[in-house]
Amino acid sequence: MTEDANSWTLDPDRALPAEPTARAVAREIYAASGALPIVSMHGHVDVDLFLDNQPFANASELLVIPDHYLVRMLVSQGMTPADLGVQTRDGTPFETDPREIWRRFCQNWKLFRGTPTRYWLEHEFAVVFGAPAPPSAQNADELYDFFLETLARDEFRPRALLDRFNVEVLATTDSALSDLAAHRKLAELDGGQRIVPTFRPDSLLQINHRSWADDVARLSEVSGIDAGDFDSFLQALRQRRDVFIAAGARATDHGHLSADTTELEPSQARRIYAAALRGEADDADAAAFAGGMLFEMARMSAEDGLVMQLHPGVLRNHNSAVRQRYGADAGFDIPVQIEFTRALQPLLNSFGMNPDFRMIAFTTDETVYSRELAPLAGAYPALRLGAPWWFLDSPEQMRRFRESAVETAGFYNTSGFVDDTRALASIPARHDLSRRVDAGFLARLVTEGRLDLAEAVETAVDLAYNLPLLAYAQRA
Amino acid sequence: MTEDANSWTLDPDRALPAEPTARAVAREIYAASGALPIVSMHGHVDVDLFLDNQPFANASELLVIPDHYLVRMLVSQGMTPADLGVQTRDGTPFETDPREIWRRFCQNWKLFRGTPTRYWLEHEFAVVFGAPAPPSAQNADELYDFFLETLARDEFRPRALLDRFNVEVLATTDSALSDLAAHRKLAELDGGQRIVPTFRPDSLLQINHRSWADDVARLSEVSGIDAGDFDSFLQALRQRRDVFIAAGARATDHGHLSADTTELEPSQARRIYAAALRGEADDADAAAFAGGMLFEMARMSAEDGLVMQLHPGVLRNHNSAVRQRYGADAGFDIPVQIEFTRALQPLLNSFGMNPDFRMIAFTTDETVYSRELAPLAGAYPALRLGAPWWFLDSPEQMRRFRESAVETAGFYNTSGFVDDTRALASIPARHDLSRRVDAGFLARLVTEGRLDLAEAVETAVDLAYNLPLLAYAQRA
Amino acid sequence: MTEDANSWTLDPDRALPAEPTARAVAREIYAASGALPIVSMHGHVDVDLFLDNQPFANASELLVIPDHYLVRMLVSQGMTPADLGVQTRDGTPFETDPREIWRRFCQNWKLFRGTPTRYWLEHEFAVVFGAPAPPSAQNADELYDFFLETLARDEFRPRALLDRFNVEVLATTDSALSDLAAHRKLAELDGGQRIVPTFRPDSLLQINHRSWADDVARLSEVSGIDAGDFDSFLQALRQRRDVFIAAGARATDHGHLSADTTELEPSQARRIYAAALRGEADDADAAAFAGGMLFEMARMSAEDGLVMQLHPGVLRNHNSAVRQRYGADAGFDIPVQIEFTRALQPLLNSFGMNPDFRMIAFTTDETVYSRELAPLAGAYPALRLGAPWWFLDSPEQMRRFRESAVETAGFYNTSGFVDDTRALASIPARHDLSRRVDAGFLARLVTEGRLDLAEAVETAVDLAYNLPLLAYAQRA
Repeated sequence: MTEDANSWTLDPDRALPAEPTARAVAREIYAASGALPIVSMHGHVDVDLFLDNQPFANASELLVIPDHYLVRMLVSQGMTPADLGVQTRDGTPFETDPREIWRRFCQNWKLFRGTPTRYWLEHEFAVVFGAPAPPSAQNADELYDFFLETLARDEFRPRALLDRFNVEVLATTDSALSDLAAHRKLAELDGGQRIVPTFRPDSLLQINHRSWADDVARLSEVSGIDAGDFDSFLQALRQRRDVFIAAGARATDHGHLSADTTELEPSQARRIYAAALRGEADDADAAAFAGGMLFEMARMSAEDGLVMQLHPGVLRNHNSAVRQRYGADAGFDIPVQIEFTRALQPLLNSFGMNPDFRMIAFTTDETVYSRELAPLAGAYPALRLGAPWWFLDSPEQMRRFRESAVETAGFYNTSGFVDDTRALASIPARHDLSRRVDAGFLARLVTEGRLDLAEAVETAVDLAYNLPLLAYAQRA
Repeated sequence: MTEDANSWTLDPDRALPAEPTARAVAREIYAASGALPIVSMHGHVDVDLFLDNQPFANASELLVIPDHYLVRMLVSQGMTPADLGVQTRDGTPFETDPREIWRRFCQNWKLFRGTPTRYWLEHEFAVVFGAPAPPSAQNADELYDFFLETLARDEFRPRALLDRFNVEVLATTDSALSDLAAHRKLAELDGGQRIVPTFRPDSLLQINHRSWADDVARLSEVSGIDAGDFDSFLQALRQRRDVFIAAGARATDHGHLSADTTELEPSQARRIYAAALRGEADDADAAAFAGGMLFEMARMSAEDGLVMQLHPGVLRNHNSAVRQRYGADAGFDIPVQIEFTRALQPLLNSFGMNPDFRMIAFTTDETVYSRELAPLAGAYPALRLGAPWWFLDSPEQMRRFRESAVETAGFYNTSGFVDDTRALASIPARHDLSRRVDAGFLARLVTEGRLDLAEAVETAVDLAYNLPLLAYAQRA
Repeated sequence: MTEDANSWTLDPDRALPAEPTARAVAREIYAASGALPIVSMHGHVDVDLFLDNQPFANASELLVIPDHYLVRMLVSQGMTPADLGVQTRDGTPFETDPREIWRRFCQNWKLFRGTPTRYWLEHEFAVVFGAPAPPSAQNADELYDFFLETLARDEFRPRALLDRFNVEVLATTDSALSDLAAHRKLAELDGGQRIVPTFRPDSLLQINHRSWADDVARLSEVSGIDAGDFDSFLQALRQRRDVFIAAGARATDHGHLSADTTELEPSQARRIYAAALRGEADDADAAAFAGGMLFEMARMSAEDGLVMQLHPGVLRNHNSAVRQRYGADAGFDIPVQIEFTRALQPLLNSFGMNPDFRMIAFTTDETVYSRELAPLAGAYPALRLGAPWWFLDSPEQMRRFRESAVETAGFYNTSGFVDDTRALASIPARHDLSRRVDAGFLARLVTEGRLDLAEAVETAVDLAYNLPLLAYAQRA
């Protein structure tokens, strides 16, 4: 990157391979894919942000406080989340001065060296907002003021950013209990379903979830179907899925600890459900129910055509003190080893060859790409391999994903990139990085005589644009 | 690759590193190893193919229908095996027009981008058969006709191909019940044991195998030893091994789900065997028997000198509907995580330091290379580390294999390349690719000052030619 | 490397990336880090070596016999440890002629191609001792004589080597029962604590260790506290830790099979301890006790400030015949798969946010870097990620460590390099290699526009020098 008094521009070749032969080819490939519209089929931006469409207040509220990648890194070096403005639930004081929070972040910019957060933030600073320089202890206040001024402009309001980013479609992630009113209103404003919901029923499928009983009660309310027994519970879930479909949903999203999909005998499911309502289900019941419900979700997807996304293998809330003080999603979710081959066998045996069914599987355990997910996705027509996700959404991991998965699954059994972010301003940075890394991988195939340049260009366009549209096209 | 109206030649530097410094060195290394004779010590070409020595009928029967790598990729994108001519067992119609099958393959050539299948087929098309261009929807019929004409020529009959490929020795894989008549006749025709059998007793060692009881009955017949109890069962197995050795066999081959090698007490083995004959053995019995029999196979190998190949960790026939319609080997075998350190301890404790014993271990789980197999092979004289195999037989995996295993095991505790293929025409492509990738890895060591060029050249020759001969030399 | 009649000099760019753009940047980075003082915070050189300060007798006793990396490689190709001078415990003859041992090593130099042992030995030969050429069958005797003469010189005595190597601080690893007299005497000689002990209590924490009962008895003696019950056992351990701290210790070191850190109820701990003293504890007791004691060690570290090092996941003495003939540490320790996320949760829940506590975690299972250790170290302030260790102390593994861990943990949650060696002469080679590989990784970030050169240089200096000092700074 280069930097002078008046402007800061990023290296136009950043994240492309450095070796000149490969770089020249990668540039050519990236030239075809880099500016394509963004298809963001799996993300976590709050839909109300777009409906309200208010300017972002300041740089800390936009970039620091809600970004658990960023907060956890600073915490790992001795700050507390409260020091960074994360609200506490137990009365512990937390920093409320956004300028002070911003200074703390800027002083510790070096901690992000080598991380994707660094890449994304540089892109956001330089490309999205036109900031004059990267953060440092020296320029913290100057930058803070720059953002105050910039964010107040209409062109940086949430909906304007979507246009600026060339976002063609954006999927949010929504509680199965959501009324989706915001999505409907936005569709009216947009004249079409550009911001679509995703059906996320985790808390309803996991009877050991702390809000399960409450959420089941709410499910009865919002669906108008009394979920007093297992069969009506399934009915109520179907009703919610239909509502989501009407609002433009293309997919469901499932975050379970295990990938188990063992079908439950109806009698067993009914027994466990009833026991759970009485508060008498045990851990084995919870595990069996979670697996059985993934099977049921597949059955429903084969009927209604919603694409089923599964991303198992993360142990949530690893630290109980952090959980109690700050709640969930505080940066203390840690991956565990995950198994797919046996876990998905029940589901794939029943629905894996079904043209009306589509599953997209994600992992935070990179070892399963070559061993399990690529062989499965390279055989079952129903299965697509999701993009490197969460901890794996980074240049090295994206490269290793292609190096590990493509030889067995091919390019065309992968789903295309998903940004998985709640940070609106980072969306173009993330898609851009993915396109650059893919260009680099394809360039290597070309320079090693393993692919023609024209094929590489076509593949890059497919990966960036056509494949996510295809993978998330509603089935059935 | 370059392509013009009259000829199609592949990039002579394909699969070598693209960076000019490394490429120059890699070329020099590959120049010494690329044209060495092929030593193919582990493969699955049907021996009758050579005895019959009939011309291949057409491109579909040669290249598409029997290749489960190729079929599964097309299936993963929505075709059925039957669409591609794979014979059904349940009366479902299947495509019988080879030209139509060929068209379907050609239309979907893009699906193979980035896969080793693509590399192998390009080599077969351009180098083995001199086809005018890679497949496409446009040229499908023209190519089909080209192959019709080409395959009818004597120089493309199976035995002629062996000469053309410069195959010095080729190991087939054969049922322990085989009479090996074909191998004997070929040895007479060849004036020596060029095509040698490999002893594969899986169905006899796995009492839960669907044909176990039948196969034990046939074992009694072919061996002339009534395998009515465990001790005579072992005797009958010894008899079969001796027959294989007489026919030139150098190795046994064992595909088990687990790598467990726990020795069974004789009383336990006898009990389980008797129970199995009565159809009363359970799953725990089957697992214990399989592990115990691997230990027995090691004991026999230490006596008779057959090299013992073990490749655990693949769950066969993942999809039951596919299994029922098409039988085994239909592309739905999926790896699972595998463990070697504890599993091989009983066997290596007894035979690992024995100079009369040799085991070659393969894996489809690349995570065990650096963690388990390289440390084991870098300590035990009896153990050699097999080449990247099946799903791992690809450029990226071969490179990662060297990057993961050599630092701890060295080059000289690896077994050299095995092609593991039932596709005769792909043999030179596969060996060629391996030699190129090894040349690239060695070139990196040279350009990084970690190895002298002369050493690299000598190592490349050893890997391509001397090491497989040494690793599979009969012991004892 | 180049070689002529009179001198042998290594490639000055060895182990840097070969591609010219990256190499130029890597040179600049290495120029800043390569000559920094050595901070060796985790090693296994015997402290008496320095106190005695006798010349090394010959090349075999210095370089071959005590190096289990080297011995195991020769054993893997058919020699016995006894052939290489390793002393037997069962009366089996072993080679006692160091010249003959040296010849065997030199004749087999090719086996080390591609291994870190090769890199280290070349550095030792060429840089440390100025040997005229790499070993070969031809020059074995000449080299042997060269080393005889060289090693007799005062400048190659152990303490002189420390100066020559620019070692600022060197940590040894010492039995918890050690009286540390040697360290105290050396501190007097050195005028300061340059050679510091590390508290290693494994045999006391593992009740199934063969010397547990004896070691507990000795613990009572050396501590002056009768460890007759669990509470006094803890007291005695605290006493030993205090003695180590007084002698300059900065850390403890724990090699357990599992990483489990589940706290034991005091009543349970007391029961198991009493049962173990009576010889009545079982395997489950041993596992529970080991985990419980890691928790206790963390509690003590949070009190006394010793940094806690944990390196689980190696199955010791895989071959029982080798164990019986040669004892422990004979090259037959083999890694197993390891799990950290759940195993460390009890410890990190209690001490992970505690500023007075520091843990450094090592692994020989590289799959945990991206999946478990980087996410944990990137969240918990108490946790640092140790350098690639033992089997992973090699160029490819160091590179993969950075590629796998930095994106999630950042550079600043890693501990800096540790050499982990008992081979004094290899210390500069190992640190040099680490600095070169880090320079190469940082150079790639620079050439790919992901880091500025000035940042890369600063980071390289931190990794080589500042971070190990910081990571091992006594807490509390």
